[in-house]
Amino acid sequence: MHPDLINEHVKSAQYAVRGELYLRGQELIKEGKEIIFTNVGNPQALGAKPLTFPRQVISLVTAPFLLEHPKVSELYPADAIARAKQVLDQFKVGVGAYTDSRGCGGVREEVAQFIEARDGYPSNAENIFLTDGASVGVRLCLNSLIRNENDCVLVPIPQYPLYSASITLYGGNMMGYYLDEEADWSMNMQSIKTQVEAAKEQGKVVRGLVFINPGNPTGQCMSKESLEDMVKFAKEEGLVLMADEVYQENIYQDKRPFLSCRKVLMDMGPPYSDTELISFHSVSKGVAGECGLRGGYFELVNIMEDTVAELYKIVSINLCPNTIGQVAISLLVNPPKEGDESYESFRKEKEAELASLRRRAHMVTDAFNSMKNITCNLTEGAMYAFPKLHLPRKAIEAAKAAGKAPDVFYCLKLLEATGISTVPGSGFGQVPDTWHLRTTILPREEKMADFCEKFREFNDEFMKTYADEEPAAVNA
Amino acid sequence: MHPDLINEHVKSAQYAVRGELYLRGQELIKEGKEIIFTNVGNPQALGAKPLTFPRQVISLVTAPFLLEHPKVSELYPADAIARAKQVLDQFKVGVGAYTDSRGCGGVREEVAQFIEARDGYPSNAENIFLTDGASVGVRLCLNSLIRNENDCVLVPIPQYPLYSASITLYGGNMMGYYLDEEADWSMNMQSIKTQVEAAKEQGKVVRGLVFINPGNPTGQCMSKESLEDMVKFAKEEGLVLMADEVYQENIYQDKRPFLSCRKVLMDMGPPYSDTELISFHSVSKGVAGECGLRGGYFELVNIMEDTVAELYKIVSINLCPNTIGQVAISLLVNPPKEGDESYESFRKEKEAELASLRRRAHMVTDAFNSMKNITCNLTEGAMYAFPKLHLPRKAIEAAKAAGKAPDVFYCLKLLEATGISTVPGSGFGQVPDTWHLRTTILPREEKMADFCEKFREFNDEFMKTYADEEPAAVNA
Repeated sequence: MHPDLINEHVKSAQYAVRGELYLRGQELIKEGKEIIFTNVGNPQALGAKPLTFPRQVISLVTAPFLLEHPKVSELYPADAIARAKQVLDQFKVGVGAYTDSRGCGGVREEVAQFIEARDGYPSNAENIFLTDGASVGVRLCLNSLIRNENDCVLVPIPQYPLYSASITLYGGNMMGYYLDEEADWSMNMQSIKTQVEAAKEQGKVVRGLVFINPGNPTGQCMSKESLEDMVKFAKEEGLVLMADEVYQENIYQDKRPFLSCRKVLMDMGPPYSDTELISFHSVSKGVAGECGLRGGYFELVNIMEDTVAELYKIVSINLCPNTIGQVAISLLVNPPKEGDESYESFRKEKEAELASLRRRAHMVTDAFNSMKNITCNLTEGAMYAFPKLHLPRKAIEAAKAAGKAPDVFYCLKLLEATGISTVPGSGFGQVPDTWHLRTTILPREEKMADFCEKFREFNDEFMKTYADEEPAAVNA
Repeated sequence: MHPDLINEHVKSAQYAVRGELYLRGQELIKEGKEIIFTNVGNPQALGAKPLTFPRQVISLVTAPFLLEHPKVSELYPADAIARAKQVLDQFKVGVGAYTDSRGCGGVREEVAQFIEARDGYPSNAENIFLTDGASVGVRLCLNSLIRNENDCVLVPIPQYPLYSASITLYGGNMMGYYLDEEADWSMNMQSIKTQVEAAKEQGKVVRGLVFINPGNPTGQCMSKESLEDMVKFAKEEGLVLMADEVYQENIYQDKRPFLSCRKVLMDMGPPYSDTELISFHSVSKGVAGECGLRGGYFELVNIMEDTVAELYKIVSINLCPNTIGQVAISLLVNPPKEGDESYESFRKEKEAELASLRRRAHMVTDAFNSMKNITCNLTEGAMYAFPKLHLPRKAIEAAKAAGKAPDVFYCLKLLEATGISTVPGSGFGQVPDTWHLRTTILPREEKMADFCEKFREFNDEFMKTYADEEPAAVNA
């Protein structure tokens, strides 16, 4: 298995979130340095505590023999015990057996009810597939959609590199459309239309349109108008909408609350309400931030039954998603209700974390905007800030001399100087000759001032070192 | 996303274990019928209890706040509490954060130690990748190995359809080699060599050689000689060996204990000891049978560093395997030790289940061999019996008239009559014009006599209904 003899698409796929910066960070750890991993949206890695109630239920369903223990109620509240029994009933034979390949039917029903309550339109559990995190579902759908290199999928730039990497891996053609940094990273329909026309002229077939709302890495919340424009365009062009909505709980402003694409599409009525849509959600994000448990789902909206059957067949090859991730999804979509013993404490934990995230979103972006040569849109949602680095010519030249892209150069220096691990904008895509980086807003609130200060000190020093000199007088 | 417009490989992939029989079983359940799911190696679905100690540890690591609870020791033994703390130390920030994409380093170290203790040769944790069950790893490796439809992978017939489905999905060419039913399903090197020669003549490139030991669906344990022959052949031909060794704990006879391919290859010394090998293991099988937790790993042996790096990049796209599956792997490879509080009870649970599985392997195959028109090799290992159905001509004609393969016809009749859900041999591949089915040996021991009796009654009736009549006198 010589590296020259492996699959070309495997070789050419790129995944920057765990790329050069991440690997250098791992080396620094081995050298005993302390690294602040703000490169991945991984809340518990930076000290976020898991929500208590879901963990109590998971703890009980994995040790069902405790349910009969006379002292179980001294360690667990009554509603966690009751819920654990309910979950075990749903799974029928416990969490140690394979479930249906789409996940446990009872959990899929709960997801359908959650979606209905959110959007006001019924959802069918037969069209819901539970997955090991949302990424697996995204990859499955791209794999099914892409037939050959002539098939294009529209992806926002900047994008989360899951999309570029998977489209490459499945031999398709990624077609980027720019988000508008000057307009809070909003969709630019003209940019999409131009791309599609260009693709058609080249004889290519555009199959799907990906969007991420709230945005990753850009943190914007999409307006109703943007979503409507996109639905119209997808309908007219016969595209499948792929809605990455994993950050739907993470909203930090009130101007643009989260709106699901499904609701927008249904509200639009015929002919738009039968636009094809696949929506992804996850337990990794939101307030729970249960990244390690790998629970996710996708809903197929307006997708033909025979296509659903093909996807069912393909997920069967892997037997089933992990059951604990499935239980976590159940607890995400069906949390404690008012009147339950744990309701108040659960609500408080959740609200406190969300409020803190909101404060941190503002702290981080305010800090960037006060730094030399950096501007940053407000993180309206999701978990990231994506500041623009206005790099001096001298820095760009130094990067070139070091054989690095200028943003990679900046991020590596930042990492070495402060231990802050970020991802360069080039890993997500950006307008040529602009430079960015992505950081999460996840350092704990009590450490946030220090985080921002470290960043500022480094940036001051960097910008000073590479400041462009006044052009020398030329009369020498 | 019209079904005609999805990826051709997605459409053409077949996966019989969750195919027509499974779907019909699901329908019967909805009609209120009781189904005995012996179609999948899913022990806990048929009543196997999870091992207590691993579940106690998992219960604690998912609710780490219990570790400080004054009454924790009333529900959990001291060594489970201590181990949970150790696991949390390994994971550093608990099980709710993404780990390294190959899995937690501490667990990979434990796997390396387990492999070294098993084989007598050191193993390097850098070459071990934890996965969501073994299937994900198999798919990753096939995806990387297969470049185009000219690339062939050798797979035993009968085979576990994960291989055929994945090879189709990744656009490669599966090349079957027959196992010898008359010789306890042993490898037939001549069959492999003939296939490889034929492939070469067609200008194809053979890349990999898959084997399953103990066998699925065939249940054989491979001899040292067979393994050596295979290593030699792989070395000579420059093939990557893919060793599906997920049933290594499930051995039901003493003539051929489990031998890892890795040990055989290392024992052979140069030049064979540097043959490329990827070995897969899982928590789904063995005595734990933790199918739902989706814990697996693969070890890359003699695989070039740059290739390992490419695989690392690809697994990064999915961020990481689920942490509970990782903890389950830790507990599989590093169980309680002699002297630990839980050691005796753990050992007893495990030995009792393994002894019972051994008795059931014999019960099932003895029963088949006593049934009319059925013969069956002993299930030496794994979880399956793969009896041969000597179907009367009349049954074959009736199947043809019903538009079914004869073994599918038999299995559907069996399902309707008894609720026993099996998988027809055609889902695994078989010598043309021979017919088999796969059943697990997993009905609980106390139900096994009844299971065998139900099967016998059905088979008696089936064979009577379709018995070939004596040819009529022709002098009329």
